[in-house]
Amino acid sequence: MPADFSDWMQRCAARAEAALERVLPEPSVAPGRLHEAMRYAILGPGKRVRPMLVYAAGQACGAGPEQDGALDAAAAAVELIHGYSLVHDDLPCMDDDVLRRGRPTVHVQFDEACALLVGDALQSLAFDVLARMPIAPALTVQAVQVLAVASGSAGMAGGQAIDLDSVGRVLDRGQLEAMHRLKTGALLRASAALGGIAAAAGSAQRRALDAYAQAVGLAFQVVDDILDVTGDSAQLGKTAGKDQADGKPTFVSLLGLDGARELARELRRQAHEALAGFGEPAARLAELADFVVRRER
Amino acid sequence: MPADFSDWMQRCAARAEAALERVLPEPSVAPGRLHEAMRYAILGPGKRVRPMLVYAAGQACGAGPEQDGALDAAAAAVELIHGYSLVHDDLPCMDDDVLRRGRPTVHVQFDEACALLVGDALQSLAFDVLARMPIAPALTVQAVQVLAVASGSAGMAGGQAIDLDSVGRVLDRGQLEAMHRLKTGALLRASAALGGIAAAAGSAQRRALDAYAQAVGLAFQVVDDILDVTGDSAQLGKTAGKDQADGKPTFVSLLGLDGARELARELRRQAHEALAGFGEPAARLAELADFVVRRER
Repeated sequence: MPADFSDWMQRCAARAEAALERVLPEPSVAPGRLHEAMRYAILGPGKRVRPMLVYAAGQACGAGPEQDGALDAAAAAVELIHGYSLVHDDLPCMDDDVLRRGRPTVHVQFDEACALLVGDALQSLAFDVLARMPIAPALTVQAVQVLAVASGSAGMAGGQAIDLDSVGRVLDRGQLEAMHRLKTGALLRASAALGGIAAAAGSAQRRALDAYAQAVGLAFQVVDDILDVTGDSAQLGKTAGKDQADGKPTFVSLLGLDGARELARELRRQAHEALAGFGEPAARLAELADFVVRRER
Repeated sequence: MPADFSDWMQRCAARAEAALERVLPEPSVAPGRLHEAMRYAILGPGKRVRPMLVYAAGQACGAGPEQDGALDAAAAAVELIHGYSLVHDDLPCMDDDVLRRGRPTVHVQFDEACALLVGDALQSLAFDVLARMPIAPALTVQAVQVLAVASGSAGMAGGQAIDLDSVGRVLDRGQLEAMHRLKTGALLRASAALGGIAAAAGSAQRRALDAYAQAVGLAFQVVDDILDVTGDSAQLGKTAGKDQADGKPTFVSLLGLDGARELARELRRQAHEALAGFGEPAARLAELADFVVRRER
């Protein structure tokens, strides 16, 4: 990956981390243990792909320094939603995972009831942060709607439900794609959309961002499935081979390793195509699509 | 209770039920089982106290028919948050309750993973519904902020965390009150506040609503504690005596039954006092305070 893109990613991650640090309540404020667990769940290791999408989408739509605050709020909000979903997914009644980003999961480090409340409170915090975006109220309202739909039963939570119901069942490619479009795709699309909203982008730009994000979102999941087979636990920071062991349908089980790799390349091509109208300001979005497809963890 | 107040309560409950019916996704829409479980959690029996607070607060602040849509959205949103919290509270890792409103709890009727997602998706839906309030965007943004803060670690979820940490410990009255001000009080305050926001109330009216709701919110919990001792499971629709059996501190364990009853009466007095400036339009709020203190389930 280009050296300046690697620098940009690090700056984005640091900027998102700083925004999250600002909005997460201190453990010195009651209830201290809950706040400590919320920070444990969110701060520290994390790829911060969703905040990067927010920042890159904002840049593609010509966001200036006056939109920095709105972009930071959006970046923090999508990462809070993502983080809450990981905490709940790891619970014993869901994926029952003990390792996440190389550390004990929240219910292992704290306890199950605490982890449940951490997820619940992180979701509320995401909407709190988003509602405080320093932009025109009409745009803020749009942002809240976008995030709420992407998080709920027509988005991430709905995708989780379909995923649970599909364990041990044979899905065809259409069904698998539909599940992932909700489970991981919806929040990635929302991230790009929020970047556009923060930059007060017009409808043509917003449509292009959405086409881009749909392709990247699906590519992200295809590559996750590939890495679940080819990666090792230490590198991934989570248990490798788990989806296979759990009998979950994946793009690799459906298309084979080569077929999944071909699909990832095709989705990368679609993502680039969607960026045609933006020109140079969309360079980071293009590089981000490449990164999502080529990453090794 | 006055006959016309009883009629008003029934109309409010029916109106809230209709609003909830409209915003809850149909089971015919995928993921069908999740949507079925969301409807099971929310529709059917329920006192609908929070929607009543929304409607009564709106009326006190002079809301006209043009604000009906905003009040319905607010009423649905607070009930969705309340409903999600019950689903999560009933989970085995929290209160481990099998009976709620006279029916099997969601994780018993469906399963634990489904109940977890039901709660998560209901919270998202609450913010989706609220963001669609048909009022000025600046007011909508305020409404989202109010609900998000009331739901999160500085509100309901925070109160739950303090409650969990206090099992088997001796709390003094100040600590018990502080816990309940978050756990149940925050959402009741938010309900009154949202009624005021939907009616575009001024700051003096909003402050008075808040003083009223703080008193009623605490009274609600004091009466809950009294009913846990004096009620029976069939009447309450939940397991009576459970708090006592669980070793949870309550207003009754702290003040005795007579002391708790005296506190409820004092809080009712404070609630009435806060309404002095509203005059006749606040009649329903006054009756609601009486109802909260005198209810038998």
